[in-house]
Amino acid sequence: MQIATPYLMFLGDVPDTLAAKTAYGINDWRPEWCVGQLRMEGCAADLGIPDLTLTQAVGRGCRTMVIGVANAGGVLPEHWVAEIVAGLEAGLDVASGLHVRLGSIPAIAEAAERTGRALHDVRHSSETFPTGKGTKRPGLRLLTVGTDCSVGKKYTALALEKGMRARGLDADFRATGQTGVFISGRGVAIDAVVADFISGAVEWVSPAADPRHWDLIEGQGSLFHPSFAGVSLGLLHGAQADAFVVCHEPTRTRMRGVEARLPTIQQVIDLTVQLGRLTNPDIRPVGIAVNTQGLPEPRARALLEEAVAAHGLPATDPVRFGVEGILDRLAAEFPA
Amino acid sequence: MQIATPYLMFLGDVPDTLAAKTAYGINDWRPEWCVGQLRMEGCAADLGIPDLTLTQAVGRGCRTMVIGVANAGGVLPEHWVAEIVAGLEAGLDVASGLHVRLGSIPAIAEAAERTGRALHDVRHSSETFPTGKGTKRPGLRLLTVGTDCSVGKKYTALALEKGMRARGLDADFRATGQTGVFISGRGVAIDAVVADFISGAVEWVSPAADPRHWDLIEGQGSLFHPSFAGVSLGLLHGAQADAFVVCHEPTRTRMRGVEARLPTIQQVIDLTVQLGRLTNPDIRPVGIAVNTQGLPEPRARALLEEAVAAHGLPATDPVRFGVEGILDRLAAEFPA
Repeated sequence: MQIATPYLMFLGDVPDTLAAKTAYGINDWRPEWCVGQLRMEGCAADLGIPDLTLTQAVGRGCRTMVIGVANAGGVLPEHWVAEIVAGLEAGLDVASGLHVRLGSIPAIAEAAERTGRALHDVRHSSETFPTGKGTKRPGLRLLTVGTDCSVGKKYTALALEKGMRARGLDADFRATGQTGVFISGRGVAIDAVVADFISGAVEWVSPAADPRHWDLIEGQGSLFHPSFAGVSLGLLHGAQADAFVVCHEPTRTRMRGVEARLPTIQQVIDLTVQLGRLTNPDIRPVGIAVNTQGLPEPRARALLEEAVAAHGLPATDPVRFGVEGILDRLAAEFPA
Repeated sequence: MQIATPYLMFLGDVPDTLAAKTAYGINDWRPEWCVGQLRMEGCAADLGIPDLTLTQAVGRGCRTMVIGVANAGGVLPEHWVAEIVAGLEAGLDVASGLHVRLGSIPAIAEAAERTGRALHDVRHSSETFPTGKGTKRPGLRLLTVGTDCSVGKKYTALALEKGMRARGLDADFRATGQTGVFISGRGVAIDAVVADFISGAVEWVSPAADPRHWDLIEGQGSLFHPSFAGVSLGLLHGAQADAFVVCHEPTRTRMRGVEARLPTIQQVIDLTVQLGRLTNPDIRPVGIAVNTQGLPEPRARALLEEAVAAHGLPATDPVRFGVEGILDRLAAEFPA
């Protein structure tokens, strides 16, 4: 999938910033591609980049309108359709990370046909996958896992890629979600793959590689989330992870969208090792990534020190304090 | 999904009987619907029902040609297309359990359009599912789980439905695979659902019910299968099983289609309880179903006695020896 850049970020009228996390993620990791944002009345998200009309966006060189929002169930609200049609008429392609296909909405399909613009559904892949084989393939792989959804798994994998490359290591971020695909320009939204092919798609996303090459695979969901644990397990098995980092959001008390309680970091470590051994008997934890965004710095540092003491692993907030400790641990555990 | 009966069973030229297990399953549980079979040169499967030409099938009242075969990856072989087109031209609807949609093959789509016949893709659902919630709902549920794929999970659930109904209990088989959908005329092929909605689809398949009603939910795959464990886990979480039966095939040494070793029955019991507790803390095993088809009767009976002694659970071959022992155990564990 090739998406033309730069982007106009469409935020609709989402009720909170978490619903626009795709847009925030793209803007954080590819700010040079995010020329401006288009927000509807009542929108509670703000990327802090210029608000542009469609005409202004085209004038500044935008080539694709990115539907950078996710909502439960992946439905496209009725009242966004007219804006998307107007975007196509203004000369922009449209790329969406929603479950629903843009082309399944008649007004959008008709406008794309009429204007000759492209529609990209980042959550859908035209690739056909084999079922997973579970046979160990060469190359090193690190998977980010979590105590819940939306706890920083993508950020952590991207930060590790950046840090490894800065050290001169051969490393690639491997996207498994729509935001990651927008950021890396390739990959598969694993939660939209047909269930039989989850682990097979991950084997495809992270193919056999040089024995010293690192793939940094973006995790999804949580083994403890009643909605999505199946996706997380298929991803773990397909990744055949040599190493994993546990991602955590310390202010959350319930799992996102359901009544279930959050597991502890130790429960996630234990279950990931237990279940991951099916396809990689040597799987091991190499760090903890805590999203401390909601905490003052002294409290954040104290919490990370507690995590180091409790688990014997480097613990950091990748966004706030970097990932050098985890990279040092990886270098020690997997000497060249 | 409503499929017109009776059926002409199309077996193609599959290389072994296991590849035609859908057709065998339909014929075993709905023999009154299976009027005849259509086999191509080299076909190694045989349902033991009349071989019919298309003209003969139509003459005997057949209304739907059932593609009763499954192959790895779900692809439709090129050389079956002409037979399917001929079936449509003879006046039959066509129903398929393959992953590939019949309508995605131009020659078939064109013939269906031209003849006005219906195409059914049993593995695909037009239903939109919410994501799973994990909140406990009323009604009793039994899930069949397995040490591997194709070990008798559907047969066991169907045998339990039949046995419970014979005892006057309120019980329904809930299909989660293509054969089950052909047999029960409803349900969802869970392995073809988009990954994010696995547990949500199971919550839909087995909705809230009377507190004394039993749903007998057909399991899929195995928590220990590197290709499909994600599907099995989402199914377990969505089922919120009160009780489960472990299904096993004792002559197998490797898991179907991969190099992984078979888990033990005890490993399956332990992991099912451990992971199932996320959505039902009271989940418990109530029996073991062993497919002893390949064993002489004395060996089969000895093996079942060993399983009873080792696990303290009723053990049977549902096809050969019935399921009364498991039903007695259920009656004792869940008194009305």
